[in-house]
Amino acid sequence: MLQEIHKKLDELYPEMVNIRRHLHQYPEVSFQETGTARYIADFYEELGIPYQANVGGNGVIATLKGGKPGKKIALRADFDALPIQDEKDVPYKSKIDGVMHACGHDGHTAQLLILAQALAMFQENIPGTIVFLHQHAEEYAPGGAKPIIESGVLDDVDAVFGTHLWATTPFRVLQTSKDVFMAGPDRFEIIVQGQGGHGGYPHQTKDAITIGAQLVSQLQHIVSRRLDPLETAVITIGQFEAGNAFNIIADQARLVGTVRYLKKDIQEQVINEMEKAIEGICAANAVTYSFNYEKGYPPLVNNAEEAELILEAAQEVDDIETAEEVKPVMAGEDFAYYTMEKPGAYFFTGAQKEGHSYPHHHPKFDIEEQAMPIAAKTLITAYFKYQGK
Amino acid sequence: MLQEIHKKLDELYPEMVNIRRHLHQYPEVSFQETGTARYIADFYEELGIPYQANVGGNGVIATLKGGKPGKKIALRADFDALPIQDEKDVPYKSKIDGVMHACGHDGHTAQLLILAQALAMFQENIPGTIVFLHQHAEEYAPGGAKPIIESGVLDDVDAVFGTHLWATTPFRVLQTSKDVFMAGPDRFEIIVQGQGGHGGYPHQTKDAITIGAQLVSQLQHIVSRRLDPLETAVITIGQFEAGNAFNIIADQARLVGTVRYLKKDIQEQVINEMEKAIEGICAANAVTYSFNYEKGYPPLVNNAEEAELILEAAQEVDDIETAEEVKPVMAGEDFAYYTMEKPGAYFFTGAQKEGHSYPHHHPKFDIEEQAMPIAAKTLITAYFKYQGK
Amino acid sequence: MLQEIHKKLDELYPEMVNIRRHLHQYPEVSFQETGTARYIADFYEELGIPYQANVGGNGVIATLKGGKPGKKIALRADFDALPIQDEKDVPYKSKIDGVMHACGHDGHTAQLLILAQALAMFQENIPGTIVFLHQHAEEYAPGGAKPIIESGVLDDVDAVFGTHLWATTPFRVLQTSKDVFMAGPDRFEIIVQGQGGHGGYPHQTKDAITIGAQLVSQLQHIVSRRLDPLETAVITIGQFEAGNAFNIIADQARLVGTVRYLKKDIQEQVINEMEKAIEGICAANAVTYSFNYEKGYPPLVNNAEEAELILEAAQEVDDIETAEEVKPVMAGEDFAYYTMEKPGAYFFTGAQKEGHSYPHHHPKFDIEEQAMPIAAKTLITAYFKYQGK
Amino acid sequence: MLQEIHKKLDELYPEMVNIRRHLHQYPEVSFQETGTARYIADFYEELGIPYQANVGGNGVIATLKGGKPGKKIALRADFDALPIQDEKDVPYKSKIDGVMHACGHDGHTAQLLILAQALAMFQENIPGTIVFLHQHAEEYAPGGAKPIIESGVLDDVDAVFGTHLWATTPFRVLQTSKDVFMAGPDRFEIIVQGQGGHGGYPHQTKDAITIGAQLVSQLQHIVSRRLDPLETAVITIGQFEAGNAFNIIADQARLVGTVRYLKKDIQEQVINEMEKAIEGICAANAVTYSFNYEKGYPPLVNNAEEAELILEAAQEVDDIETAEEVKPVMAGEDFAYYTMEKPGAYFFTGAQKEGHSYPHHHPKFDIEEQAMPIAAKTLITAYFKYQGK
Repeated sequence: MLQEIHKKLDELYPEMVNIRRHLHQYPEVSFQETGTARYIADFYEELGIPYQANVGGNGVIATLKGGKPGKKIALRADFDALPIQDEKDVPYKSKIDGVMHACGHDGHTAQLLILAQALAMFQENIPGTIVFLHQHAEEYAPGGAKPIIESGVLDDVDAVFGTHLWATTPFRVLQTSKDVFMAGPDRFEIIVQGQGGHGGYPHQTKDAITIGAQLVSQLQHIVSRRLDPLETAVITIGQFEAGNAFNIIADQARLVGTVRYLKKDIQEQVINEMEKAIEGICAANAVTYSFNYEKGYPPLVNNAEEAELILEAAQEVDDIETAEEVKPVMAGEDFAYYTMEKPGAYFFTGAQKEGHSYPHHHPKFDIEEQAMPIAAKTLITAYFKYQGK
Repeated sequence: MLQEIHKKLDELYPEMVNIRRHLHQYPEVSFQETGTARYIADFYEELGIPYQANVGGNGVIATLKGGKPGKKIALRADFDALPIQDEKDVPYKSKIDGVMHACGHDGHTAQLLILAQALAMFQENIPGTIVFLHQHAEEYAPGGAKPIIESGVLDDVDAVFGTHLWATTPFRVLQTSKDVFMAGPDRFEIIVQGQGGHGGYPHQTKDAITIGAQLVSQLQHIVSRRLDPLETAVITIGQFEAGNAFNIIADQARLVGTVRYLKKDIQEQVINEMEKAIEGICAANAVTYSFNYEKGYPPLVNNAEEAELILEAAQEVDDIETAEEVKPVMAGEDFAYYTMEKPGAYFFTGAQKEGHSYPHHHPKFDIEEQAMPIAAKTLITAYFKYQGK
Repeated sequence: MLQEIHKKLDELYPEMVNIRRHLHQYPEVSFQETGTARYIADFYEELGIPYQANVGGNGVIATLKGGKPGKKIALRADFDALPIQDEKDVPYKSKIDGVMHACGHDGHTAQLLILAQALAMFQENIPGTIVFLHQHAEEYAPGGAKPIIESGVLDDVDAVFGTHLWATTPFRVLQTSKDVFMAGPDRFEIIVQGQGGHGGYPHQTKDAITIGAQLVSQLQHIVSRRLDPLETAVITIGQFEAGNAFNIIADQARLVGTVRYLKKDIQEQVINEMEKAIEGICAANAVTYSFNYEKGYPPLVNNAEEAELILEAAQEVDDIETAEEVKPVMAGEDFAYYTMEKPGAYFFTGAQKEGHSYPHHHPKFDIEEQAMPIAAKTLITAYFKYQGK
Repeated sequence: MLQEIHKKLDELYPEMVNIRRHLHQYPEVSFQETGTARYIADFYEELGIPYQANVGGNGVIATLKGGKPGKKIALRADFDALPIQDEKDVPYKSKIDGVMHACGHDGHTAQLLILAQALAMFQENIPGTIVFLHQHAEEYAPGGAKPIIESGVLDDVDAVFGTHLWATTPFRVLQTSKDVFMAGPDRFEIIVQGQGGHGGYPHQTKDAITIGAQLVSQLQHIVSRRLDPLETAVITIGQFEAGNAFNIIADQARLVGTVRYLKKDIQEQVINEMEKAIEGICAANAVTYSFNYEKGYPPLVNNAEEAELILEAAQEVDDIETAEEVKPVMAGEDFAYYTMEKPGAYFFTGAQKEGHSYPHHHPKFDIEEQAMPIAAKTLITAYFKYQGK
């Protein structure tokens, strides 16, 4: 039957493309994706699959109970877009100014909807229950996964699977990890509050730029000297803003950045070391500061067994040439919350468009649409395999 | 006769105030001060004192030949304003949006015009020739002094004197120096050209912020280790701008700043050391850079004898309580060019308004107007003393 | 038969202790361990097992051909000591001033000799050929492993196993890795050649201390910004020596340190980045330098299959409670050369003495002697398992 | 009579050389110069000039009361040597191992003794009273000047003059200053107490070298950013000592250095900023420290009038070609204590030997001996001039 479902998905591919392109033209940013949610709900309405809207915000959860007994498994697709101006020159370019599906969530949604449509045709023979988990707000912390979990709709679910169409992974390649797969991405903002003044009289000021620069150097020591060299962390200062005039000493330096980590204790150690570094450098210069550290999503940790199951499922998807374990990726994903609650695994479905090399979040980002049925096939194959466990 | 001139200046004080307040309401920025130049020219026209307009740009040079033989001495007043919004609440507030006499040049002009008016009354008995040197564009390098000198109008002048109404020097105090009096103020811009990228993948980038920060630290060593500790230099980075997003590694860091120095060889050494520091730090990080160093006015060096003469003149101005030698001031002045060509001296006429503490270039800057006749009296007293040398 | 061998090893344990304690009292430093080599050779002489002395230096290779066909497998034990003064208070304390078996190689030798003695009793029934590989000079690069390999004696060997009695791993625990197990440990020496002079006249000098300090900071950026955060490297400056007097500016700074890495390409990248950093910082300060980088042993990479076989063998050694895979250890080992040439694996035999916590190379270092038979049993069990592959 | 004294000094020059060379061969280090003190006392004993020995330690004070009324003026010469090995190849080379007159104090003593001898011949006609102030222990803080002053022997003195034979000032040149002439030289020692450990495990340590290096950089900011650029200070770290092995992380870094300053408030500011910098950097790295700051001699400030008098006196010494005011010298001198108590001035008597360029405290240091009578002549001329004030 699985082969028949795969075949059906191939047949429905044009429909998948239609949906994806429709969504691509009408993107909505995180937490404001009400139109998309309604589109999804209408789809299930029409299919006659029971669903619940407004789950944990704009989430939509549809449930297809198979005709045979079995486990209840959620397949997740996120559907929010980004505040980026679409610069592609394609017919399905975004029609919303300044908003764009620059991360492929439109494709996630399209393949899952069509998968639901396909599965509905085989309902009687399907073991277990499929939960179509359409999640809003993945792009913007605190994200949609957490409130959806807190709503309780997943309480009786046995496992959760999900995938990301990944534009920098080659088409026909599947990637996952049996442990940490994606990093925890935090944001911080440091404001060094010195005292401004005439550029020729530094002693009457507290020069925020030289102090900020010392701080940047001090922060390097956390990764190079304070952390276990066998662990992973990145501290990036992405913005350094200070001063308005060449001849006036800056009163304030603003350093904004991100921390990436793979383990909770490393995150805690980084925060602790950053606090000490900032406090110490500012004390050394007798200035005050503010340090605002916003924890983002936790690292996404796959369950080893479920990840193995994904790799096995990939063997049964004809279009996949390679299925491989990879090192963690330094981007974040709120799918992390699902595997903290339930067994599950997340994987990348290679979606690199030929001759196209724009990364996620780029104004010219696009995906290889043929990766969509591969994603759907792998998900449903994993579903079936999990039933047999 | 000097006493009579002083008395006349006191009588004409209300007129001085009128002129100053008129100019204050109609300020013009450097190199665009055509209205002010015409106002000055008209004043001499009316007085019947011969003048030359459009000297080296908008400069106006009037010449009063005394009835007795003597030396030819220039008294200089600058007349440009600044691109600053006037925030004072006074009847004579600037009427030009975004332009303001925030440095007192209106007062400089007023006292010199009225001095000319007073001297015209004593013309027959005056020894030598007075050159009323109304200079445009002091605030904006390359300034007006240089083209005025290059025009040749000062070629036969024996000496040049000038003063600045100085809002942070107490009223009734005169300050000058027998050597370097004001600093050379240069401007530089360094662009560190790294390579941007994802905040979690520093090794795929060249992080311009950490490199820029290392450079800021390296530049500190020039003053602390490379220069003679008995010499003076300031290297201030007033602006550090890099990056646009917390999670993207910045490809470029822009450091804009000023160098202040008192001696030409120190300036050369600073430039040379900066070049080495920038080149070395960028090489250490395998990035490219641009370094643009704009030399501003040279340091203003008073002639010792002429400065001494100013101090002596101050003794004969009743309203002056203290005349003192002071350490150099770290601001710049294109009066510097005059003393490079001719004997001369520059001094500060204390003009701090009671209960008012806004420094030069501040939106609420104002001067004690009674300092204007003191400036005029000191200049003309110095003139007479110089005749007697 | 394996069980009988294990039992025999237990019986011979007192003999193992005797040998170990004898060697402990007569330690010899790397490349000078001729007495120990003779002791080993004599042992085989007495056993009647053919051996070859002076292999690649002081190495001793004995070969026991079993009565049944099978593979030829080398079991390696190193036997050199360290230039450390023994500070233990035990009867078997080192009798050689300033030399000590502070790393457990005496125990390595003792268990392998006794293993040979035990196996000799079962020779007829043993499949394959056992090579007792007694290696000199592990503690001091370039080490003894390389010349032994180059001598050709291992050319026809099928696999190599070895173990380290590890004093910081609990007794009855075995640790290994299926990939990189121990780091590459390199040594570097940087000399910043400035120019000395009077402490009050920095501008007449090139202050090697401030330059050296800038360099230390710059080197931190290699780990924090230049390397893939998912890779491992350590750059440690263990010595910073500069200057002789508080009031004289130092002409030279000497920085000596170590680099630890797990992959060759990371080593190359570190060297390359260090060269750039040193060259750039020295250029920024117009000083010269020397940079001497001595590559130590390569990282020790276990073959996954052979490591798995060790873990399986551990299951059959009664005294072992836990056999685990661990993250790489940042120390180095020239066993690395063997697995570059042949299949093989290295493991730690937990040898922490109860109530004793001195690390390797400490003047009070000692081992739990009961770990010796565990080492021998694991090695011979792995040998038998490998025959069956 | 002054001319006769000058002439007598020229006649006695060979004697001056004899004394200087004798002392040069028998140098004694600070606070241990009992033999030299006895030599001086014996000299006055023989001359019949009353003296007091053991003043404030090893000081010797002789007093010649002239036959005419006048002021009482002290002329000071110091007589201690340095713990330096004499490496000159001259007949009068030091006979004491490891001790050397490497600063010219032997010459100071010789010229003052011969001046006393010469003046004794003119005693009747001399106005006022000459105090020959032979001071011990100038080279080693807290020095001899302070206890001599505290002994009270100078209480009734009207003024104090002194000179240094200066080997880097050309022969026949005299240098002095009307204000600060020599710097305050302090000593400091900072110990950063981290935590040592294995070179491959930085996170288990607190790396004293990277922290010490950050501190060196932070300390640069005091001179470059915290002090008035028109003031003078030097912070030199002359020694940086940390670590014993390339592969062990250093637990301690020792930074020893000197501060040079010209004004007391700058000294206080430097200490205060150093404390903040050290505390802040150590806090940033969670390590402890000790900071020991030893104040040396205060800056030597000449009285303007007495310095002017020295310059005038120099006009009357035929052998002097140039007498000039110079910028402060960054070395220290405990003559500073005398001018804090009494009017006075200190000057350099140029003593550069032809074709010889070793600075003070160098193992090959030597002086032009003909500078000795110049020193004596200038001192006695100043004495006479001061009588006439």
